[in-house]
Amino acid sequence: MDFGAQPSAPLDRNEKFARLRLIRSENVGPITFRQLIARCGSAIAALDHIPHMARRGGLSRQIRICSTDAAETEMQAARKLGARLLFWGEADYPSGLAAVDDSPPLIYVRGHPHLLQKPMLAIVGARNASTVGRKIAGDIARDLGQAGYVVVSGLARGIDGAAHAASLATGTAAVLAGGVDVVYPREHQTLYDQILESGVHVAELPPGIEPQARHFPRRNRIISGLSRGVLVVEANLQSGSLITARCAADQGREVFAIPGSPLDARALGPNRLIRDGALLTESAADILAALQSLDNRRIREPQGHGGISAPPAALPDSLLEEAHDIVTELLGPVPAGIDDLIRESGLLPAAVLTVLLDLELAGRAERHSGNRVSRLPD
Amino acid sequence: MDFGAQPSAPLDRNEKFARLRLIRSENVGPITFRQLIARCGSAIAALDHIPHMARRGGLSRQIRICSTDAAETEMQAARKLGARLLFWGEADYPSGLAAVDDSPPLIYVRGHPHLLQKPMLAIVGARNASTVGRKIAGDIARDLGQAGYVVVSGLARGIDGAAHAASLATGTAAVLAGGVDVVYPREHQTLYDQILESGVHVAELPPGIEPQARHFPRRNRIISGLSRGVLVVEANLQSGSLITARCAADQGREVFAIPGSPLDARALGPNRLIRDGALLTESAADILAALQSLDNRRIREPQGHGGISAPPAALPDSLLEEAHDIVTELLGPVPAGIDDLIRESGLLPAAVLTVLLDLELAGRAERHSGNRVSRLPD
Repeated sequence: MDFGAQPSAPLDRNEKFARLRLIRSENVGPITFRQLIARCGSAIAALDHIPHMARRGGLSRQIRICSTDAAETEMQAARKLGARLLFWGEADYPSGLAAVDDSPPLIYVRGHPHLLQKPMLAIVGARNASTVGRKIAGDIARDLGQAGYVVVSGLARGIDGAAHAASLATGTAAVLAGGVDVVYPREHQTLYDQILESGVHVAELPPGIEPQARHFPRRNRIISGLSRGVLVVEANLQSGSLITARCAADQGREVFAIPGSPLDARALGPNRLIRDGALLTESAADILAALQSLDNRRIREPQGHGGISAPPAALPDSLLEEAHDIVTELLGPVPAGIDDLIRESGLLPAAVLTVLLDLELAGRAERHSGNRVSRLPD
Repeated sequence: MDFGAQPSAPLDRNEKFARLRLIRSENVGPITFRQLIARCGSAIAALDHIPHMARRGGLSRQIRICSTDAAETEMQAARKLGARLLFWGEADYPSGLAAVDDSPPLIYVRGHPHLLQKPMLAIVGARNASTVGRKIAGDIARDLGQAGYVVVSGLARGIDGAAHAASLATGTAAVLAGGVDVVYPREHQTLYDQILESGVHVAELPPGIEPQARHFPRRNRIISGLSRGVLVVEANLQSGSLITARCAADQGREVFAIPGSPLDARALGPNRLIRDGALLTESAADILAALQSLDNRRIREPQGHGGISAPPAALPDSLLEEAHDIVTELLGPVPAGIDDLIRESGLLPAAVLTVLLDLELAGRAERHSGNRVSRLPD
C-alpha cells in the first residue's frame, strides 16, 4: 500500500532536539507545527521566529518556549526507558500516520519499532464487551495476523485486550493515551509486558504522563492513522470507538463493523456505522477482500484538505497589520474553512495564512482538522 | 402510495367463471393468463382460442381445459367456506399485488378483505427463531400496526407467528401456501382462527389443497407483492425468507433486515441482505422513516420488464409457421430475454409473441419473471 508521497529527509540531532522543543512550546499543535516547519524551513529556525510572530499575533507577553533543560530531561527519560523517538518526516515514521494532516510531530515507540513498517489494521470496541464480542475480536485479530497484518488497538479492557492478546504471536501495536511507559488500565500490566516483549507500544505524550479523559480522542486519531482500516466490534452509541471510526473516515481509511442485535446496546454503535456506510463485517476474510480490492487503486484521499500550504517568508509589515485586523474581524468561535476566510477577506492567501499562524502562536486562534480555524476567547 | 395504473373493469359472473377455468387449464400460468386476456380481450374468448393456439404450438393432442363442472365445484367449495374470490383486474384486488408481473389471476380471501386495501408490510423470518428474534418481530409488528400498516406474513412457526400474533388487534394478513382453508403448520390452528376472526387469509391455490415444498416460493412472491416492503428478522442462508426478500427487490419493494451477530447462523441471512443493499433496521421507526421518504416519489419500477404486450389478433398462417421454426430453434433450456429473442430472430415482435404464447400453451416453452422464456423438453 502507498499512502502517498511524504518528506523523509534525514534529521540531524540538533534539528530533532529543536523539533521536540517546538512541539512542547506554547500554542504549537501538530498542524501549527507543520506550518512552521514549512514556513521557516526547520524547527531550529522556527524557534527563532515564533517570539516575533506571537507578538505580531497579539500576545502581550513573551511566548513560552520549551527550554533546552526540559527537552533534555524528556530525552533522558526516553533513553532510560529504551524508548525510541520517531519524528514526522523521518523515513521510519509510520507512513500511514505521516499521511494524516494532524499527525504527531513525534511519537515514542517502545518494543519492536520495525512492526510499524508492516501493514496495520485496528480493532477497537467496548470495554464491557460480551463473551461473543471478545471471541470475534480475537478470531479476527488472529486471522489478520496470519494474513500479515499488525493489529493495532488501545490496550483498553474488553475488545482491545482481546485483539492484542490474540495477535501477540504475529505482531500487535498498542497506542497509549498517556506516556509510552504508563500502563492504563493497571490490570493490563501483564498484557503491556507481553506487548513490550513481542509487539510495540506507541505514544504521543512524553513519558510519565498519566492519561486523562481529554487525551483519548487525540489518541484515537493515531490508532486509525496507523491503520489501513478500523474494525469496530462492539460499541454503544457513546463509545470512543465511534470517534476512532470517524477519524478513520476523515483520514480516508476503511471502516469495518460487526453487526449485532438491536436489543444489545453494544451493537448500536456498529449498526449505526454500517448504516452510515461502514462495511458489514463477519470475518477477517471480509476485511481482507475489501483491502485487496483497494490495493488496485490508490488509497482514498482524506476528506480534510489540510496539506501544508507554505506561506512565503516575508510580507511587508503594513500589509500584515491590515490583514491582521481583517482576519481577526472575520474569525468567530465556530470553526470556519480557511478557503472561505481567504475569499471573504479579499486578501492575498499568503497574508491570511501568515496572520493565522501568528494568531495561533498568540493563543488567539485554533486549528481544526479539515483545514478549519476558529477564534479563541481573548 | 400509488402502485401505478392498472385495469379495473368490473367483471361479470360469466367472465369470472371463464377466468377461473382459464387459469386452471393446462399450461396456463399467471403470465400466460395475462397475455391471453390481452390478446383475446376476455377469458371467455381465450377459452375458445387456446385449442387452436396449442395445436399451432405443436401439441399433438387436445389441450386440457378446465371443465365447467370442475370450476363449479371449486366455486361451491369457496362459497361453503365463505371465502371470496378476487380476480386480477377487479377494483378490490390488492393494488400492490396487481402491479407485479406474475400476480395471481385470482386469489381466495377469507376473513376481512377490506384489510387488503390498507398499506401493508411483510415480516418474515426463521421458523427456529430465537426468543430475541420473536420479540423484535412482535415489537415491530405492533408498532407498524399502530402506524396504520397491516402486517403480512406466512403463518409459519417462529418469526411469522410472532408477527401475526402481535398485529391481530390492528390487522394482519396470512398468505397461505396451500388452500385458503388449509392450516399449516397444524399447531397454528388457534392462530389461524384468530386471524380469521380479526384479520385476513389469502391463498392462490384452490380450497383443500395441501401445501407442498414447491408451493412456498410461489407463495412468497404474494407476501412481497402485497407489501410496500419486506422485513427479514432472522434467517439462515438457506431460508425461504431470502426468496421473499429477492421477490421484493424484483418487484421494486423495499427490503429491511435486522442485523445480528456473525456467530448466530440466523443472522447470516439478514446480514447478507444488508450487505446487498437492504436497509439495516433496528425498529419500526426505521421502516416508517424509509417509507415516508419514498412517499414523495413514485414507487420504484420493478426490476423485471414483464408488462403486458398485446400481440395483434391475426397474422398470416404462413408467417407464423416460419416464425415458429425460427423461435423454436433459438429457444434453449436457459431462460432468455424476450427482447433478445426478438432481436436475434429478425422477426416482427408480434410474430414472436404469438409463437411464444402458442408454445407455452403447447407446454413447450415456459415463462419466467423478468420477461424471460425457456424451452421445455418435448
